[in-house]
Amino acid sequence: MNTQEMLQKLTELEQIQYAYQYVMGVTNFDGNTAAPKNSYQARGQAMAILSGETYKKFINDDVKELLYNLKDKKDKLDFISNRKVEEYIENFEKISKIPMKEFMEFTKLRNESNHAWEQAKTNDDFESFAPYLTKIIEFNKRFANYRKPDKKAYDVLLDDFEKGMEMDDIDKFFKQLKKDVVPNIKEVVKKSASIRDDFLNRSFPINKQKELSYILTDLLKMNRDDYIIAESEHPFTMGLHNNDVRFTTHYYKDMIASSFYSTMHEAGHAIYGLNNDIKLNTTILSGGASNGIHESQSRFYENLIGRSKEFIQYIFPTMKKLFSDQLGDVTANEFYLAVNKPKTSLIRIEADELTYSLHIMVRYEIERMMFEGEVEVKDLPAIWNKKYEEYLGITPPNNTKGVLQDVHWGFGMMGYFPSYALGSAYASQFLAKMKETLDFDSEVAKGDFTKINLWLKENIQTHGAIYTPKQLIKKTCGEEFNPSYYSNYLNSKFKSL
Amino acid sequence: MNTQEMLQKLTELEQIQYAYQYVMGVTNFDGNTAAPKNSYQARGQAMAILSGETYKKFINDDVKELLYNLKDKKDKLDFISNRKVEEYIENFEKISKIPMKEFMEFTKLRNESNHAWEQAKTNDDFESFAPYLTKIIEFNKRFANYRKPDKKAYDVLLDDFEKGMEMDDIDKFFKQLKKDVVPNIKEVVKKSASIRDDFLNRSFPINKQKELSYILTDLLKMNRDDYIIAESEHPFTMGLHNNDVRFTTHYYKDMIASSFYSTMHEAGHAIYGLNNDIKLNTTILSGGASNGIHESQSRFYENLIGRSKEFIQYIFPTMKKLFSDQLGDVTANEFYLAVNKPKTSLIRIEADELTYSLHIMVRYEIERMMFEGEVEVKDLPAIWNKKYEEYLGITPPNNTKGVLQDVHWGFGMMGYFPSYALGSAYASQFLAKMKETLDFDSEVAKGDFTKINLWLKENIQTHGAIYTPKQLIKKTCGEEFNPSYYSNYLNSKFKSL
Repeated sequence: MNTQEMLQKLTELEQIQYAYQYVMGVTNFDGNTAAPKNSYQARGQAMAILSGETYKKFINDDVKELLYNLKDKKDKLDFISNRKVEEYIENFEKISKIPMKEFMEFTKLRNESNHAWEQAKTNDDFESFAPYLTKIIEFNKRFANYRKPDKKAYDVLLDDFEKGMEMDDIDKFFKQLKKDVVPNIKEVVKKSASIRDDFLNRSFPINKQKELSYILTDLLKMNRDDYIIAESEHPFTMGLHNNDVRFTTHYYKDMIASSFYSTMHEAGHAIYGLNNDIKLNTTILSGGASNGIHESQSRFYENLIGRSKEFIQYIFPTMKKLFSDQLGDVTANEFYLAVNKPKTSLIRIEADELTYSLHIMVRYEIERMMFEGEVEVKDLPAIWNKKYEEYLGITPPNNTKGVLQDVHWGFGMMGYFPSYALGSAYASQFLAKMKETLDFDSEVAKGDFTKINLWLKENIQTHGAIYTPKQLIKKTCGEEFNPSYYSNYLNSKFKSL
Repeated sequence: MNTQEMLQKLTELEQIQYAYQYVMGVTNFDGNTAAPKNSYQARGQAMAILSGETYKKFINDDVKELLYNLKDKKDKLDFISNRKVEEYIENFEKISKIPMKEFMEFTKLRNESNHAWEQAKTNDDFESFAPYLTKIIEFNKRFANYRKPDKKAYDVLLDDFEKGMEMDDIDKFFKQLKKDVVPNIKEVVKKSASIRDDFLNRSFPINKQKELSYILTDLLKMNRDDYIIAESEHPFTMGLHNNDVRFTTHYYKDMIASSFYSTMHEAGHAIYGLNNDIKLNTTILSGGASNGIHESQSRFYENLIGRSKEFIQYIFPTMKKLFSDQLGDVTANEFYLAVNKPKTSLIRIEADELTYSLHIMVRYEIERMMFEGEVEVKDLPAIWNKKYEEYLGITPPNNTKGVLQDVHWGFGMMGYFPSYALGSAYASQFLAKMKETLDFDSEVAKGDFTKINLWLKENIQTHGAIYTPKQLIKKTCGEEFNPSYYSNYLNSKFKSL
C-alpha cells in the first residue's frame, strides 16, 4: 500500500470505530436515562460482547502494521494525520496489552457495578457496592500493570485522563492551592456565615426548573435541534457528533441551585462538542483535548460565567418572573451571594468554587491510598468521613451523602477526579487570556454570548483533540499551565464577597 | 467439528447477533424518542456502517457452512435447535442474495427516509417525502427480485411479515370480510350516528393522560422495572429482552381515546416480549411467531379487552376520578358506546374495530398497485384520497391526515399492513378458544388479568418464535386459521351496540 492507500484505510477504520462508539454511546446514555431498571443485565451482556467484537476489530496485527507503517511515513503526512496516527497508536498500545477476555469482563463489570452503585446510593447501602468496587480496583490495578509495569498504577491512570500528569504534578498543583488558597478558606467561610441562602431551598416546581434549563441553553445560543437535555442520577454529557450532543441534569424540588448549575456545567461540555469542527466528526480527533480541558469549558460556563455577579444580575429578573413565589423577596445581589457562599458542605457537585478543591483533594488522596494499598474497601466510608471532618469540618450523616455520592467509581473510572480541579485552573488561565482582547464582564452583563462563545470555539473547542492539553494551553495562552491564575481568581473573588 | 461443537458455535453466533440487535435497537428507539432532531445523519452513518459490519459477520461462507452442516444433522438435533437452524438459514438466504453495498445503502436510506417522513408529516408536504418513497419502493422491489426472482415482489414481502401468506391468501381473507362484514358497515355506521362522543375531544391534561397509561399497565400486571413508556410520533414497541421492553404512545390533549388505546395496544406487544421464556433471551427465537401473531396480542389487549363493555365498566370510575372535569357528566355506558362508535374516519390507528379493516384494505391495495407498477409515487395522494372516499365516504383534508399518516413506508416497511388485519382475526380465534376454559367476561369485569395473562403467556407468548404462525395457531386452537371467528365477533358486537 502506498501512503495514500494507507491513509484511506485509516479513515475507514476511524469510521467503523465511530459507528461502534455511536451505538455504544447511545446505549450507555439510554442506560443512564431512559432504560428500564432491570435492563442492566440485557445491556451488560450486549456491551460485553460488543467490546469483544471491537477489540478483535481494532486490536490485531493488521491494524498494528498499518499504524506503525504510517508512523514511519511521519514526514510525508500532514499535522492532522500525524496526530491521528499518534492517538491511534496510543490507544492501541493501551488496549492491546490487556487480554481480550479480561477487557470484556471489565466492560460487563462496569455496567453491573454502575447499576449496583445506583442501588447502593438509593438505599444508603455501601456494603452491597463494596464487592463491585473491590473488583473495579483490582481490574484497574491489573490493567495498569499490564500496560506499564514499570510505573505506579495510579500514575498510569492519571496520565490516561490528563496526558502528562502524574502524582508528582497533582501534588505540586494541590500544594500551591494549599499555600495560596486554603489558608484563607476558614476565614472566608466564617465571614460568609451570615450570608442568607435559605431561599435556595424553597420549593421550586420541577417543570419550571426544566423551563429554566432551556432558558439558559437558549441564552448560551445552543441550537435546540442539535442537543437534548435528559435527567439522570448524576449529570453528565455525551458528545457523539457535532449534531448530536446529549447532557443530563438532576432536578431536586428544594434545591434550585443544583439543576441551575448542573445545567450550566453540562452545557459547557455540550458546547464543546457542538463546536467541534465538522471535519472531526467520525474521526478519532473529535471530542476534547483531555478531560481537564473539557472540564475547563464546563467550569467556564458554570463558574466564570454562571456564578459571576454580571450573569446573576442579567438572569435574575427572568428567574424572579419564573419563580415569583419563591424568589419574590430576594434581590439579585442576595442571590449572587447565596450561590457563591463558601461553606463546608458535603456534596461535591453542589460545592462553591472556593471549597470545591477540598472535595477533590479528599477523593484524590483516597484513590491514591487505594492504589498504593494503604486502605481496604470496607474501610472507605470511615476514611471518607474522617477526611471530610478534617478538611471541611463536617461529617456525612450517611454514605449516600458521603462515599457513595459520585458516579465515577461505580463506572470504573479512577484517576479522573483531579481533572476537575485542573479544569477549574485551566479555565481561569483561559479567562485571563480572553480578557486581554475582550470585555468579558460587559458581554456577560449584556447576556450576549456571541463573542465569548466565538473566542472559546476558535481557541479551544473547534480543535477537538487535535492538540494535546499542553499544546493547546501553550497555543492559546502563549505560556505553560500556570495555577497562579486560579489562586488569584479565587482569592480576589472571595475576598470581595 | 462434531454436532456439539457446531451447536456451541451457533450459540456464540446468536449471542453476537443479540448484542448487535440490542445496541442497534436501542439506537433506533433513541432516534424515535429522545435523540436531537438533527442527529439523524450521525445515526444514519453509524447504522449504515454497522449494518455492513453485521453483514460481513453473519453473511459469509463459514456461517453458511455451519448452518448447512447443522441442517444435515437434523435428526440428531432437538426441536428447538432445528427451529434455530431453520430460522438462521431463512435469514441467511434472505440477506445473502443482496449485495452488501446495497444492503448498507438501504439501511442509510431507511434512517434518512424516516426522518424525511416525520418532517413531511409535520409540514403536510408529501412532495419532500416522495423521492425517498420512490427509492424505498425501488430497493424493496430490487431486493425481492434478488431473493426470489420467480415470485412477484409483493408476495415476497408479504411472506416476510407473515410466513405462508401471499396476495392470494390476503385477497381471500379480505374477500370473506367483504362478504360477511362490509355489507353491514353502512347500516351500523348510520344507526350509530346518534351515539354521543363529543366528550372524547374535551381537553384532557397530558400529565393525567400519562398517569392513566401507568394505571393501565399496572392493572395489566406489568412490572414497572422491566419496561418503559416513552413518546413518539407513531406509537411502537421494542422488545429487546424479557427484562427490557420499551413502548411508546402519543398524547394529544383533545383526544383521550388516542393515548388510551395506543397504550393498551402497545402494552399488548410489550407483554408478549415480557412473557417470552427467559431461555429465549439472546437467541434468534426470542420475539414473536410473526407480525400477525404479535398484532393478535396487541389487538387482544386493545380491543377484545380494552373496548369490551366489561373493561370499560371496570376502568371508568378510575378515569372519572382522574378526569372529573372532563368526564363528570358521562356514564360508563356512554363511554363504552363512544369508544366503539363505528364511523368513517381518517386515521387508521384511531379507527374503531369495525371499520379498521377498511383502512387496511386501502393500504394493501395501494401497496399492491405500487409493486405491480400500476401507480406512480407522485399520484399516491390522489389515489389514497379516492380510495378513502370510495370505502369510507370521506376525503382527507390534507396529506398529514391522509397518505402521510403511517410510519411504515418512511421506515422502508412494505407488506406489513395486512398483518394488522390478520392479527385482529387471529385474536378473535384465540379468544374463542380461551372462552372454552375461562370465564373471560367475568375476569375482565373484575379487573383481574391473572388468568387471562397466564393463558396468553402459556399458549402463545412464552414460545417466542419457536413455532411458525401456522404451527402456533394449530397447537393453540386445534384448528387452522379461520377468519369466521373474526366475522362473527364483529357482527355480534356491532349489532348489539
